[in-house]
Amino acid sequence: MIEYRNVRVALLGAGSVGSQVARLLLEQAAELAGRAGAGLELVGIAVRDVDAERDVDLPKELFTTDAESLILGADIVVELIGGIEPAKTLILQALSSGADVITGNKALLASHGPELFEAAEQVGAQLYYEAAVAGAIPIIRPLRESLAGDTIVRVMGIVNGTTNFILDRMDTLGESLDDALAIATDLGYAEADPTADIEGYDAAQKAAILASLAFHTSVPLVAVHREGITGVSHEQVEAARKAGYVVKLLAICERISDDDGKLGVAARVHPALVPLGHPLAAVHGAKNAVFVEAEAAGDLMFYGAGAGGVETASAVLGDLVSAARRHVIGGPGLAESNHADLRVLPLGSVSTSYQITLDVADQPGVLATVAGILAQHGVSVETVQQTAGVTRGDEGPATATLIIGTHRARESSLAATVDALTNAAVVNSVTSVLRIEGA
Amino acid sequence: MIEYRNVRVALLGAGSVGSQVARLLLEQAAELAGRAGAGLELVGIAVRDVDAERDVDLPKELFTTDAESLILGADIVVELIGGIEPAKTLILQALSSGADVITGNKALLASHGPELFEAAEQVGAQLYYEAAVAGAIPIIRPLRESLAGDTIVRVMGIVNGTTNFILDRMDTLGESLDDALAIATDLGYAEADPTADIEGYDAAQKAAILASLAFHTSVPLVAVHREGITGVSHEQVEAARKAGYVVKLLAICERISDDDGKLGVAARVHPALVPLGHPLAAVHGAKNAVFVEAEAAGDLMFYGAGAGGVETASAVLGDLVSAARRHVIGGPGLAESNHADLRVLPLGSVSTSYQITLDVADQPGVLATVAGILAQHGVSVETVQQTAGVTRGDEGPATATLIIGTHRARESSLAATVDALTNAAVVNSVTSVLRIEGA
Repeated sequence: MIEYRNVRVALLGAGSVGSQVARLLLEQAAELAGRAGAGLELVGIAVRDVDAERDVDLPKELFTTDAESLILGADIVVELIGGIEPAKTLILQALSSGADVITGNKALLASHGPELFEAAEQVGAQLYYEAAVAGAIPIIRPLRESLAGDTIVRVMGIVNGTTNFILDRMDTLGESLDDALAIATDLGYAEADPTADIEGYDAAQKAAILASLAFHTSVPLVAVHREGITGVSHEQVEAARKAGYVVKLLAICERISDDDGKLGVAARVHPALVPLGHPLAAVHGAKNAVFVEAEAAGDLMFYGAGAGGVETASAVLGDLVSAARRHVIGGPGLAESNHADLRVLPLGSVSTSYQITLDVADQPGVLATVAGILAQHGVSVETVQQTAGVTRGDEGPATATLIIGTHRARESSLAATVDALTNAAVVNSVTSVLRIEGA
Repeated sequence: MIEYRNVRVALLGAGSVGSQVARLLLEQAAELAGRAGAGLELVGIAVRDVDAERDVDLPKELFTTDAESLILGADIVVELIGGIEPAKTLILQALSSGADVITGNKALLASHGPELFEAAEQVGAQLYYEAAVAGAIPIIRPLRESLAGDTIVRVMGIVNGTTNFILDRMDTLGESLDDALAIATDLGYAEADPTADIEGYDAAQKAAILASLAFHTSVPLVAVHREGITGVSHEQVEAARKAGYVVKLLAICERISDDDGKLGVAARVHPALVPLGHPLAAVHGAKNAVFVEAEAAGDLMFYGAGAGGVETASAVLGDLVSAARRHVIGGPGLAESNHADLRVLPLGSVSTSYQITLDVADQPGVLATVAGILAQHGVSVETVQQTAGVTRGDEGPATATLIIGTHRARESSLAATVDALTNAAVVNSVTSVLRIEGA
């Protein structure tokens, strides 16, 4: 026989995710109580403007502008305001009052995570954040718990739906980046100011959270190398497809060794060439997926909707049921583990393979010169493809395109190589440098 | 500052998974203690024969044949013996002594799950079984916890690596079932007696576990409709590929309504046509994947290694760290929730679409007759494809092949339709009936 006692839930924010959380909490109250072993009572929703229009019709009397008072009476606080302030202050207040907190706030976690986790640990409360990375996809709990006995080697995620939508259209429909972005904006996948998505800021926040979790090490946002997709051209995507790759914006978190062989971690976000046979290559549209390589488990992938109000609400409600169960059982929360405390290494320490495309003079000896430059910097060539030379109009000399695939090399070696190639007399220009991941 | 106190772990069984669990527990002791907040002390390994050869070299002094005494001194018991007895008795003994139990025993859970869960609940212990379904893939915890606030509509899993390996070779290499099975046996993917895999018994056990978990309802193994892959021909696989499908053995668990509109659940295992664009179609070799459709979260997929000693050990160790954390925190375990207690419906209540291949007389009016039979039984035609008629040698009349794709219809209607088609004068034979899933 299960005894029900109500757990008091305060909701901060009623945007696209928050309003769905409120709706489901109200509509599915009996079912959720059965699963949690406790009633989940929505005691109020704090918003800036009580009269604003919402996605969902919710009881007027639940709304308040006084978030601080609402928090005081709550067992569980769900923060879905987003941004740094007032979210951070409200979460710290909730934790200090002993409430468990559920948040989907990736920006806040990526920049102030350790402070929040410490505040939770001090009072034995728990901070849940399944909704912060990859929306509806269960990835936080699998990393924290299911893989808690394994050693994670690498996490590669398509964690931004907007950029995946754009790159997928460029790949499958041959659209330009500008056209695909315009359609993403029309369909509501991209915001009016798409900078956070297409410049990789959003993905970098998620990379910081995933890296911290996967490696039991606090990885600050500033340590995440970030490149967006604005430099990705229609021609690059087309050439990639011909070569058996698809271009994806990846968030990559790795356990690596530095030049001295010391263990560390690195996190980076950039466009990459993914072989067509890799499971990440089949992630289309605005879908997200996180590919995890672990020492014992091998390769795993978690796939699903990375955004959307009701989809993300599913992750929040899962955390809510967990928090309510914990409230019934009692005992301190599961502290965020950063006991491994590995060094966070810069991009230069990362090794990967590259595809370098060069516009070169079409004359004998060019390949030898280029190959020599690569060898000088310790970058080993795996494949070379030279297209037939073309003459530029009447005046210019003949030129050719050289596409070089390299073996694994350090980023620092690559940077030096690209510098040297740019300055070589036989090289007109370095057209494109793309990392190859998952090969 | 974390205080470490040892949690005593007893291991039952040292086969391919058990020996890897023991190895990792010993090798990664410090790391696991850091994550669990408690040392995980392997106090002994119960086996039938202490001197048997193992995959891994383990300290001789850990082995014992006295499982019952070993259990008595343990906080956590890991059962990796498999089969019903003595596994069941030992697990019940462990639970009654208050120990948490971790098991990968799908046969036992599928046939005696409710008894075990009840025994655990009575003493406030917890039964963990992440390793029982889809090996290394975290699927139990996501269903139990991450999706605890959502309503799952359907679970479709490739949960048997052996049959996926065989079907994948038939599809990609054009091999016959017998040839592919022989190679699976050679490579160790199939056992000497492959019945449990190729007849779908293994997948049916996993379907019972997944359905129980997804729908908060106890679904017994006998209620799972089961068909294996022995009836799948090279020709079917080839025809499927041409029509844009791949044949997969699926375990399908659904929330459905019966004829009277009452809610229930159904579980079934059978070969099915999966559209090439569906994420499950890209699951190759011996890999497993579980595709979940939830009301709020939408479509999710969990992909990875479904078997293997070290891979499955990862799932066991994840459960071990969870159990150890719970041991440190205290409080009762998370009881298995079967509060929804939906009716378990027979296959006849399931609706799906079908591809029916007929060998028919090549004469005018055949299609009208066949279409009439389908309409009579309420089965609506979506596509028809008729191949050019062929004459059988000199003597026989001309015949043609009719491939009919149907709209969704109840299994009961389909069964009646196939009966009527078999008895129709213009139909020489019903060559093949395959369900289409994920379209």
